[in-house]
Amino acid sequence: MTVNHPARDQITLENVFTALGNPMRLTVVRALAAGGEHPCGSLLEGVSKSTLTHHWRVLREGGIIWQRPSGRELLLSLRREDLDARFPGLLDAVLGAISADAPPRAAGARPTG
Amino acid sequence: MTVNHPARDQITLENVFTALGNPMRLTVVRALAAGGEHPCGSLLEGVSKSTLTHHWRVLREGGIIWQRPSGRELLLSLRREDLDARFPGLLDAVLGAISADAPPRAAGARPTG
Repeated sequence: MTVNHPARDQITLENVFTALGNPMRLTVVRALAAGGEHPCGSLLEGVSKSTLTHHWRVLREGGIIWQRPSGRELLLSLRREDLDARFPGLLDAVLGAISADAPPRAAGARPTG
Repeated sequence: MTVNHPARDQITLENVFTALGNPMRLTVVRALAAGGEHPCGSLLEGVSKSTLTHHWRVLREGGIIWQRPSGRELLLSLRREDLDARFPGLLDAVLGAISADAPPRAAGARPTG
């Protein structure tokens, strides 16, 4: 266990749902679902540092993400293995719902030319 | 649509998760999962009226429950059809996780004799 992260058996359903109960945090979870570690600055745009710090804390304390310092930044990743072990099938259902609910990424995109 | 209840297409994922992010509300959802309408006074014991009112509001505004007056009380039921239509598979996964996570009902029960 890393400091400030709940151990697997300390992850509770209410904290998981609390962590998911915000559109910005759902956006982050959707991005992390692709797998791997993501620099925290790459996940939400136009958000103040204090707001980002708040969202990382709620996601971390909910047991949704690992947060790991690397140089000057933090790397975030989804705790898929722990969540799947703790609540089998729940994360897949959540990711399916997030994916189905999100607007298509292409919509509103500006032409690059 | 009933007054103060979101229409099906107004139910959002973040409001659903916010409504689920509390152990008392998870207990209520678990009880309602059996189906049918339940008098609101039968669902949570030892909780003040103002706290109950708060929890019913969050569940109602999240699109999790129908709340219907009947005489002097309110009858609550799960919006299973709407949730299944809006986020297919999610409610079943949530109920499975709640059920797996809850302590066995018999534990700690007093003998009736």
